[in-house]
Parts: sequence; structure tokens; C-alpha cells
Amino acid sequence: MRAVVLLSGGLDSTTTLAMAKMEGFELFALTFDYGQRHRVELDRARDIAKNFGTVDHQIIRIDLRQFGGSALTDSIAVPTHRNQVNIEIPVTYVPARNTIFLSFCLAYAEVKDASDIYIGVNAVDYSGYPDCRPKFITAFETLANLATKAGVEGKNKIKIHSPLIKLSKGEIIQKGVELGVDYGMTHSCYNPGNKGIACGACDSCYLRLKGFQDAGVKDPIEYTKNH
Amino acid sequence: MRAVVLLSGGLDSTTTLAMAKMEGFELFALTFDYGQRHRVELDRARDIAKNFGTVDHQIIRIDLRQFGGSALTDSIAVPTHRNQVNIEIPVTYVPARNTIFLSFCLAYAEVKDASDIYIGVNAVDYSGYPDCRPKFITAFETLANLATKAGVEGKNKIKIHSPLIKLSKGEIIQKGVELGVDYGMTHSCYNPGNKGIACGACDSCYLRLKGFQDAGVKDPIEYTKNH
Repeated sequence: MRAVVLLSGGLDSTTTLAMAKMEGFELFALTFDYGQRHRVELDRARDIAKNFGTVDHQIIRIDLRQFGGSALTDSIAVPTHRNQVNIEIPVTYVPARNTIFLSFCLAYAEVKDASDIYIGVNAVDYSGYPDCRPKFITAFETLANLATKAGVEGKNKIKIHSPLIKLSKGEIIQKGVELGVDYGMTHSCYNPGNKGIACGACDSCYLRLKGFQDAGVKDPIEYTKNH
Repeated sequence: MRAVVLLSGGLDSTTTLAMAKMEGFELFALTFDYGQRHRVELDRARDIAKNFGTVDHQIIRIDLRQFGGSALTDSIAVPTHRNQVNIEIPVTYVPARNTIFLSFCLAYAEVKDASDIYIGVNAVDYSGYPDCRPKFITAFETLANLATKAGVEGKNKIKIHSPLIKLSKGEIIQKGVELGVDYGMTHSCYNPGNKGIACGACDSCYLRLKGFQDAGVKDPIEYTKNH
């Protein structure tokens, strides 16, 4: 029983990896080097994949900057934290990102004869990103079973798992702590300083810190700014 | 009115580009450098994009060889021509290829504010490749409208056009000739020799030559092997 897990090196995907492991899957991790500004994310993903005993870990290089269109891959400023969960699509949205990521997961799954794909999208994301919504995941699963040999031949029906999709950040962290995840390995910051230390001020740090607060757990990582 | 057109430099995608042009779209061409063994394909795509007056032409480098799984990107032998149209999935199948290609088209379309995407899959392909079937295209269109800002905001509904999907090779060539396509610019061979000259013996050359024969038109390209 094999699963492909999308692994960014962040808190959500690492928790997702732990959940797939708990289900008893042999793990095949897939990470994208898509012109992120911070290489620290890739290093963390490598360490995490190793730590979880993945059978294989592939890093796919694609350059989404070629099209432009997002603060995460463009040189425009990343917004600092918001006072409320956004109801609009955030500027950090990368066009069709999860469609592209899941497509590669599907190719990887087909080559490795895996029928399960895990993606760590969650409720906080899907309030803002169109491609984090449950109906997007369902539509991708339908597509996946039409797109592949496995689907046509009727064996190994592909299943897309998004186990965090209805969880808040706090609930994700509680779940991960139960599974023994070491969140000290994970990286979330959009604007890290020297040695990859988290800024504590960007959107992503804000949501992470609030999550740990809600979970009643101390965030083990270091921050530039005190909280 | 803008359209993204998937352009390989082959006969089908070039005809598709001509059809999108005829519909009056501003053209944005997208070509993949996915570890094909023959660079001539990319050169032809560049020439064709220029010739058709595309507003923009992007070449995206992705390495599908990283996963393995196909004769077109692996080093295993490409089969020579078959005596009949295959009913099994051919070994030249690349896992999830069209899903990956359309995902990038979607990102490009979203950034360029295009609502139309053209892909030149056809009936000959979809007898063998799962991701060339009409129901795959329909499922991708559904996904596209859930995956993007445009879909969520209800403007610019994305449409996936596959105008060749029910046409035979011969019918495609007839259509292209009507539209003034110069097929001398296009490349189809899986095994080209020096200077990119087509072998005349591989699956792709076989289907192309049969198409020209059926259309009653002379293929303007040169072949190593006489016919």
C-alpha cells in the first residue's frame, strides 16, 4: 500500500505525512522547488522526508515565476499579518498551484503504482484559495481516475486524501502532537531572516502562532520577533 | 479575447493553433521541454509560434524523466509502426502528461486573463491514451473552473477546446490545408536522424504518412526512408 504525499516542509504537510504513515502506507514524498525565495523550505522538506522513513523523496523543479502572478514567487512585498481570516483571495495565491502539484503527484503515483495521494490543504486555506476547497479536491479525484492507465484499466482507483481540510490550525497541531510530530523541523515563515529564522510577523507566522496558542502547545521554533 | 494553445510543434497542435487563430483569439502558446530526446521539436515550436503571430510563447522546462515510465522520455526503444490502430495503451504513454500540461495552461491562462485553452488531442490518440478522451477533457474543464480565481469569482469561465478530438489524421490535415497551414514547418517523428529528418518508420511517422495519404495531400517534409 503506497501513498504519494505532497511535502512542502511546513506544518500542514508534515502533519499530513504523519497521518499517512499512521495509516500504514509506504511513503513517497514529493516536494516542489518552484522558485520559492527561501531555500530553507527545501532543506526542511529533505530532513522531514528522511525522518519519516519515506521510501523515496523527489524534488521537482518547476518555475512558476515564468508566468508571474503571486507575491510568493514574485519580488513584490509579502503582506504582514491580517487581523482576521481573509474572505478574499489573498495576494499570495499562486495561479493553479494545487492543480499543477496534484498533476505531478498523479504522474508519480502512476509510475510508483501508488493509488493514494495526500495533500495538506485545510480550512484556513480554503477560505481564501479556490484550489483548497473540498469540491476542488473531489473534482481532481474524478479527473485522476479518467487520466490514468490505472483508472482506465479499473484497478487501483486513485484516492485524493485531504485529511486536514476541515481542521483549524489549532486542531492540526493537536493532531500532530498526538502523532508525535516534531514541529521544530517544520518551516512556515514567508520572510525568514538569517539561518532561516522565522520573522513572526508575516501571515504565515501569524497563523502558525495563533494555531499553537489555540492548541495550548508551545511552538518549538525560534522567532526573530518575540511573542 | 485570449486563448492559450498547447503547442508541441507537431501536426495536430499546429492545426489547433490555426483553428484558434481563425476564431479570432489573441494567441498565447505554451510548449513543454520535458526531456524529449529531440531538440528539433522545440525549434519547430518556436518557428511556428512566430509564424502565427502569437502574442507570447512560453517554453516550460519540466523533467518527466525524473519519475520514469515512458519510451518517449526513457532510453528504452521506441516501437516501430503498428499494422492497426492500437486498442491497448501504447508504451509511449507518459503518465499524467496531459493533466500536467493542461495544469500549466491553466496557470498561464489565469495570469494572462485568458479564458480559453486549446489542446490538439484527437481520435487516433484517444483510442490508446486515457488522457486524450473526451470525458477527460470535460473533467478537466470542471476542475479548471473550481481551481481558479476566475472560476470562483464567476467571471471568465474557462473553456477547454479540443477541436480535433473526433477527427482522424486525414481530416485534421484537410482542415489544416483549408486554413493554409504549412505542414513543412511541423515535426512528428519519434526517431529523427541528422538535421531532424523524419525516419518514416516510427509510429508517429506511420500515422502522419497515412493521414496525408487519406487526405490526398502530399506531405511536404523530407523522410530518410522512401515511401
